[in-house]
Amino acid sequence: MTLPLLNCDMGESFGNWSLGLDNEVMPHVDCANIACGYHASDPHVMRRTVKLAAQHGVRIGAHPAYPDLMGFGRRSMACSPSEVEDMVLYQIGALAGICQAEGTQLSYIKPHGALYNDMAANQELLEGVMRAVSAFDARLPLMVMATADPEPHRELADKLGLTVWFETFADRAYEANGHLASRRLPNAVHHDQATIVEQAVMLAKGESLTALDGTALSLPCDTLCVHGDNPESVAAVRAIRDAFNALESA
Amino acid sequence: MTLPLLNCDMGESFGNWSLGLDNEVMPHVDCANIACGYHASDPHVMRRTVKLAAQHGVRIGAHPAYPDLMGFGRRSMACSPSEVEDMVLYQIGALAGICQAEGTQLSYIKPHGALYNDMAANQELLEGVMRAVSAFDARLPLMVMATADPEPHRELADKLGLTVWFETFADRAYEANGHLASRRLPNAVHHDQATIVEQAVMLAKGESLTALDGTALSLPCDTLCVHGDNPESVAAVRAIRDAFNALESA
Amino acid sequence: MTLPLLNCDMGESFGNWSLGLDNEVMPHVDCANIACGYHASDPHVMRRTVKLAAQHGVRIGAHPAYPDLMGFGRRSMACSPSEVEDMVLYQIGALAGICQAEGTQLSYIKPHGALYNDMAANQELLEGVMRAVSAFDARLPLMVMATADPEPHRELADKLGLTVWFETFADRAYEANGHLASRRLPNAVHHDQATIVEQAVMLAKGESLTALDGTALSLPCDTLCVHGDNPESVAAVRAIRDAFNALESA
Amino acid sequence: MTLPLLNCDMGESFGNWSLGLDNEVMPHVDCANIACGYHASDPHVMRRTVKLAAQHGVRIGAHPAYPDLMGFGRRSMACSPSEVEDMVLYQIGALAGICQAEGTQLSYIKPHGALYNDMAANQELLEGVMRAVSAFDARLPLMVMATADPEPHRELADKLGLTVWFETFADRAYEANGHLASRRLPNAVHHDQATIVEQAVMLAKGESLTALDGTALSLPCDTLCVHGDNPESVAAVRAIRDAFNALESA
Repeated sequence: MTLPLLNCDMGESFGNWSLGLDNEVMPHVDCANIACGYHASDPHVMRRTVKLAAQHGVRIGAHPAYPDLMGFGRRSMACSPSEVEDMVLYQIGALAGICQAEGTQLSYIKPHGALYNDMAANQELLEGVMRAVSAFDARLPLMVMATADPEPHRELADKLGLTVWFETFADRAYEANGHLASRRLPNAVHHDQATIVEQAVMLAKGESLTALDGTALSLPCDTLCVHGDNPESVAAVRAIRDAFNALESA
Repeated sequence: MTLPLLNCDMGESFGNWSLGLDNEVMPHVDCANIACGYHASDPHVMRRTVKLAAQHGVRIGAHPAYPDLMGFGRRSMACSPSEVEDMVLYQIGALAGICQAEGTQLSYIKPHGALYNDMAANQELLEGVMRAVSAFDARLPLMVMATADPEPHRELADKLGLTVWFETFADRAYEANGHLASRRLPNAVHHDQATIVEQAVMLAKGESLTALDGTALSLPCDTLCVHGDNPESVAAVRAIRDAFNALESA
Repeated sequence: MTLPLLNCDMGESFGNWSLGLDNEVMPHVDCANIACGYHASDPHVMRRTVKLAAQHGVRIGAHPAYPDLMGFGRRSMACSPSEVEDMVLYQIGALAGICQAEGTQLSYIKPHGALYNDMAANQELLEGVMRAVSAFDARLPLMVMATADPEPHRELADKLGLTVWFETFADRAYEANGHLASRRLPNAVHHDQATIVEQAVMLAKGESLTALDGTALSLPCDTLCVHGDNPESVAAVRAIRDAFNALESA
Repeated sequence: MTLPLLNCDMGESFGNWSLGLDNEVMPHVDCANIACGYHASDPHVMRRTVKLAAQHGVRIGAHPAYPDLMGFGRRSMACSPSEVEDMVLYQIGALAGICQAEGTQLSYIKPHGALYNDMAANQELLEGVMRAVSAFDARLPLMVMATADPEPHRELADKLGLTVWFETFADRAYEANGHLASRRLPNAVHHDQATIVEQAVMLAKGESLTALDGTALSLPCDTLCVHGDNPESVAAVRAIRDAFNALESA
């Protein structure tokens, strides 16, 4: 079976400020989403993180964001699709240049935070991001949020000659339409490792989850988002990896 | 004869602020030094300027700087050679990505302002910049300030497998060692167009200039810096171009 | 009669970039809205503009914005009311400090661009701004967009012990509810100086305007927004001032 | 006896990035040097830190810096004295505004990092900082590095009607001229708590230290710099406080 790729945000330190257990989590993931300086990271952090990913044979993805260091790219900004297109292109290029200097290369694009959420809700913005990826290198897959109905995103990508990778979450509850349950709801976030691993395995096997309203929800899952924020989240990544290894050898 | 390339700073607008007569001066130059977002420019301005240069068949150069929008990259910053290396790489990559999206490519690198001056005075910093260029693409020439003795810079570049292009100025007086005369001195800057054109032609023909102390000064001249700040400077560029055309057809 | 105060955005240069004819327009206005470094301006520009306003006896207002130099504060950002409160406070303080150093003081607050529009549409955001003003100095009036029904804003201000100044525009058409007509509509912006002066005088005299749908619209008008962007807008300010002088001496 | 004030850098978190054990160290210091947004901090962090200081009755000082978030204000920038003056004024005002909103006030100014070091080495820069403090409020003391000969700084301050507070370090070795020994030298930094406390007590009692070259060094000591970076440094602060309490009750 084709297991979903484990992707994790990386390189989110900035200057004198450290964030994330990149060294601890890198050995256990497939894909490193590396911040590009707009919501986090700086040229030195980016280069160090590219080196670390390359050492571990981990695919490198650009993790472009709105230009908002103070808000960590988590605040929507009313940028036009064309502004977003150029910002994404700038950030992809910056990371690609560092990859080139390190003798490696970009493998995919995953927009960050508010930009990621906004493009899930606003097709014009999504098209802006897609135009950036397409103009830079149409062979690079673009990660997008999985939903119950992936066809519209697939069609849009086809139109531009792009590939999309649908991303799911093992530690989040879902609405019936495949949207993530709002963090304000109780039970929106799974904290128990066994529950997280179980959901990861179900997603990997293509089994339906149970949405908040009790209905069955089937989600496409090319990649699974994991976290390296703290020792608990790194432990969960290792547990998911172990479970995936077991699936593979089964 | 091989004429020096006319290079001009471009793309130095930023968001709502406009600067420079890029449209007017682009048709008359060979090389557009395009700002990369650290001292000026933004992704949209960069892309527009790359398009404009490509339309006119003008070579595109990255114009990386210290991270200082408020000071326009004109204030020295005590960045380490390794910080400079990574910053330059980031900015080169960002512009290269935009070039790639526009179906064109970078042709050279010219650091900006205080960084350009600092690397002329500090060999460790120059080596940092050279390492960035070399790691990204050693075929890209690096513009450096011409001096009376170009050998040390040539040797350093050779060691790293790089090419340097020596840059001279037609509108500035020189010290005997080939350094630009300080702007604080009287007669440091030529304002008269005829004087500027005359110095440009002398530099192009490899003739010696007269330094401030009256001695003869011979400078290597691969490229000549021109300006698109205002109508007078654009007129001077056209006059230099006309004089160069006359030289070529002579 | 009490004439509305003429207010104008000022101090919107930034570093090496110049914007606005501050010197030309300052003699003709009552209130200078001075940018505070988040969408435009820097400490040097702020200080120079404070001095200029003080020389002309013009009231100084803080012009705080979202933190978005690249977007000139014109892009909405999903900042929380509490984030907005603290950002506004920071910017007010910075300008107030410069006023104090120049022996003068702040007279009012006018939020800028997207923040100004957002607080007109979002009461929680408006309350965040009001809390900032109230905590800093409740005697400082807050400029808000005039609407057909000013009571809700007056009541909110009363509750916090604040004063609001309602602002109108002489060069913009209005909807029946007192909102500015979208710039995308034809006739949304008046370019003819006579029309602009006529609307300014009607607003000053408390006469009703004709909204886009033909109905009569009465607006409170404590202050009128004017512009110093270019010679035409400065000429319009002088014409409005002349018309107001005529009203006053009538 | 008058004990030196214990001062500590605070409020150096930024957006999503946390730094420093402010809550742990605040109860044990006299003076909180609060970052003002140029090298660290943001409006929300500043306000939270002002509140925390006020709760503990700790004096609040502005901690202005060069505009360099990426470099944490630790890289010298070739800003002119007049640029520095306006930047310092801006940052003082911003923090003073937040203090005013919280019903408290600034008590002193301590420049940060590279700016602090540069003004110790460059009198024009020091004068720029002094002009900012003097223009804002000449009653606010300015912290400066203690040296073996404090007279020049005292005279300069007198000329501008300012007070200087000389600052010493308990965890650093000194050169004979009263400059801090370079961190590159062995033994430049004391890590042993007993040594640190001993040096703090000697400085407090006005006793001479032994400089690196073995000579006796007498330093003025109005205030002592302490650190809240990690549990060890917080423990050292508590130990110094205990030793000072013992001195006081002796």
